[in-house]
Amino acid sequence: MRLTSTALLFLLVLISCIALAFKPQLLGRHTVQTFSHHRPLSYTTFYFDQQIDHFGFLENGTFKQRYLLNDQHWHKEGGPILFYTGNEGDITWFCNNTGFMWDIAEELGAMLVFAEHRYYGESMPFGDESYSNAKYLNYLTSEQALADFAVLIKALKQTVPGAQESAVIAIGGSYGGMLAAWLRMKYPSAVVGALAASAPIWQFIVPCEEFYRVVTHDFTISGTNCSSNIRRSWASIDRVSATGEGLQWLSQEFGLCGPLKSQDDVFGFKGWLQETWVNLAMVDYPYEANFLQPLPAWPVKVVCRNLQFDTGVSDKQLLSGISQAVRVYYNYTGDAVCLNTSQTATGDLGILGWFYQSCTEMVMPMCTDGIVDMFEPEPWNFQAFSDMCYNQFGVRPREDWAEIVYGGRNISAHSNIIFSNGNLDPWMSGGVTKSLSKSLVAIMIDGGAHHLDLRYYNEFDPESVIKTRELEVNYFKQWIKSAAFD
Amino acid sequence: MRLTSTALLFLLVLISCIALAFKPQLLGRHTVQTFSHHRPLSYTTFYFDQQIDHFGFLENGTFKQRYLLNDQHWHKEGGPILFYTGNEGDITWFCNNTGFMWDIAEELGAMLVFAEHRYYGESMPFGDESYSNAKYLNYLTSEQALADFAVLIKALKQTVPGAQESAVIAIGGSYGGMLAAWLRMKYPSAVVGALAASAPIWQFIVPCEEFYRVVTHDFTISGTNCSSNIRRSWASIDRVSATGEGLQWLSQEFGLCGPLKSQDDVFGFKGWLQETWVNLAMVDYPYEANFLQPLPAWPVKVVCRNLQFDTGVSDKQLLSGISQAVRVYYNYTGDAVCLNTSQTATGDLGILGWFYQSCTEMVMPMCTDGIVDMFEPEPWNFQAFSDMCYNQFGVRPREDWAEIVYGGRNISAHSNIIFSNGNLDPWMSGGVTKSLSKSLVAIMIDGGAHHLDLRYYNEFDPESVIKTRELEVNYFKQWIKSAAFD
Repeated sequence: MRLTSTALLFLLVLISCIALAFKPQLLGRHTVQTFSHHRPLSYTTFYFDQQIDHFGFLENGTFKQRYLLNDQHWHKEGGPILFYTGNEGDITWFCNNTGFMWDIAEELGAMLVFAEHRYYGESMPFGDESYSNAKYLNYLTSEQALADFAVLIKALKQTVPGAQESAVIAIGGSYGGMLAAWLRMKYPSAVVGALAASAPIWQFIVPCEEFYRVVTHDFTISGTNCSSNIRRSWASIDRVSATGEGLQWLSQEFGLCGPLKSQDDVFGFKGWLQETWVNLAMVDYPYEANFLQPLPAWPVKVVCRNLQFDTGVSDKQLLSGISQAVRVYYNYTGDAVCLNTSQTATGDLGILGWFYQSCTEMVMPMCTDGIVDMFEPEPWNFQAFSDMCYNQFGVRPREDWAEIVYGGRNISAHSNIIFSNGNLDPWMSGGVTKSLSKSLVAIMIDGGAHHLDLRYYNEFDPESVIKTRELEVNYFKQWIKSAAFD
Repeated sequence: MRLTSTALLFLLVLISCIALAFKPQLLGRHTVQTFSHHRPLSYTTFYFDQQIDHFGFLENGTFKQRYLLNDQHWHKEGGPILFYTGNEGDITWFCNNTGFMWDIAEELGAMLVFAEHRYYGESMPFGDESYSNAKYLNYLTSEQALADFAVLIKALKQTVPGAQESAVIAIGGSYGGMLAAWLRMKYPSAVVGALAASAPIWQFIVPCEEFYRVVTHDFTISGTNCSSNIRRSWASIDRVSATGEGLQWLSQEFGLCGPLKSQDDVFGFKGWLQETWVNLAMVDYPYEANFLQPLPAWPVKVVCRNLQFDTGVSDKQLLSGISQAVRVYYNYTGDAVCLNTSQTATGDLGILGWFYQSCTEMVMPMCTDGIVDMFEPEPWNFQAFSDMCYNQFGVRPREDWAEIVYGGRNISAHSNIIFSNGNLDPWMSGGVTKSLSKSLVAIMIDGGAHHLDLRYYNEFDPESVIKTRELEVNYFKQWIKSAAFD
């Protein structure tokens, strides 16, 4: 059912990357060096005894929460702690993909901490059994994760010599950015401020069509006829796949690893294409990068060069163009032997974890209508979604809970949060894109895709992201200074 | 063990009262009229379907949360909702004992809502079984209670015609005051501000001797030699009770319902006296009142008239004075046949509930040393307390959790909370007694006992409480006005 694919999008970015990213060998508490694009990263891995259940006392067990720490630039006298609020994946991957923190550590004299989110990476409350049943999964919530962060911060301040008076700043991107903002909202005694990069904290309450509308817009502005040809492609697929010969042609034309054999396969094939377009919009970075996949600079523009046909084109011509377009995403290196349409639906724990979270509190309604967007019409159907969740996990999502617990649009009582968004990023549809007060600041990054500001400095960075990072660092300095006078 | 008695003090106030208070006959959703000292109270009783577990999704059951509503003075166009955050007892009792809300409803054009705390009164998550085992008790936490309030407020705004734009103000006293403050801190989108009356939100972290030091001070200023004679009384009891004749004499002199037979009984007898002195300090109101017991105006002064001996007095003379003194508390009406030393240790659910809460997150360390206070030395022993909790409930308290989750002293990021305290009230020892910012305002009520400001207007109200209530209403008006411009 298509509903899942939209709910999972958050994950796609991360999980694909985790599979691809250079994974450092972990050596317990010994220091590890890993090499990013830019420089060797050096951190120490720790494991903190964390309560499994912060909100009940019958389950009094603990688990090992992993966190990574670098203090090479830390000024013990008054230097801050930049605290990455880990999201739905392996924390070493976030550590390697949040170059901004490494870039600014020296200037701020900051300690860097990357805290893993429970139920991801190595931070498994019930070890290998954590995903084995509904009872063990019951402690996978954002509230528990926030409590983990608050407890860990308190412990760091109590135990690391010199850290007691350190101002802590929460930093995160995507779901991690939501957690950074929420940590400041719910535990302002723990962090003096938060950078919530590309954090769609309002995705629960915005109209369901917003997300795909932004995806479509990216393709519309990236090439003549680009989004309209993608919109037309779905009917072309239907017509071509109506015959056995057509199915065979499609499979060959796209170089699929497993040939399409049924209308169910075609349905999956279309879902795979849809996710590909979404991912491309998210990682439409201005320079060659390897985030989800190795990709050229401005990949959506490159994709769109294959889709400039006018309306006279035949179904097969159009689909040949689509086939070339997706290869930009799946085979930029030229190494792919075939394309695997089940790639985004692996049994990876990270995907399953986010699926569970979207089936409980992280309910983000999404829909398409084929008019304001370039996708096949698919209404949002909460009841169907709820039933699917019940079948999968034995739990049902609570539609209103996220809005109640995190305040919905009424968050102006909070302070010291930067909400940065890129205007190319589909997730900006659920983001805070206008400042709400002097200290709840929205920054829109022109030409920015998904949390571009959290990436390493790059010589091809547009002016917008350079300015954004400067502004962010200035706010950090203000918060640190104010905290010192408290 | 003595540790329990201090942890339970919060409850003593409430539970004794619940037993004594006029309990209205509840008639489902029909309107009930009850009669307080001052005027007939009219409210409608409702039951709201509330999630048993807000922080996990496996337990998806609901229970009926009771709340009382009065809208006779409510201005549908812009009138606020005054929302009492119920504490550890029957909500009808709080309703009847929070006259301030009834007194100001007309002036503010306010709707009044009194929401019952889960596991108290009629709001039982598992019906009669709610206290039957550790599994059912697992959802008795302040975080769950706050979530109940936030969900209920959202539902009221969505379903009561005219309420959608109503500003909601949280009001509570004692533990209910802590909940009011925390509701504003954790769910500022739900309430525009909070009045936290006599709310010891820092009782978790203040030095353990503070509470009993305030109790002692009340007796010191209320009569010559008063606290020093109480301090001396413990040794007198030990000496007199050392013989069988002495035990008999003590039992007769105090008119005890059950005579003292052993040193265990004497230990319990001393605990009962200690709680009596504490309760007297809490309800040292400036007029005749019936809060915990029917009492004269300034009952501590009346008590102290019996304790003016100088040091030459014999043990039995001193204890005769003590006996007269406690009768002020237990027999002001003259109707008591005998004094029951087990009165404050009934099996009442309310007591048990607060005991559970103090055995989990509401850990309030208390101790006495017999020097700065008038009690027998008793150090705070967390491990012993924890073991007792484990034996009683199968759970262990988490010493640091309350400070982490509610911010400890570092709460200046929040706004729009009034912390009122009376300088006679022992609980002011854990209260916020100095303003933390322009909108985190502390008010100290000179000559005030436990949340005097929440009581009905009285002709004998001291100027301090009259001014306090005026100030509180002014803040309410400011908050309501600001909310209207948001």
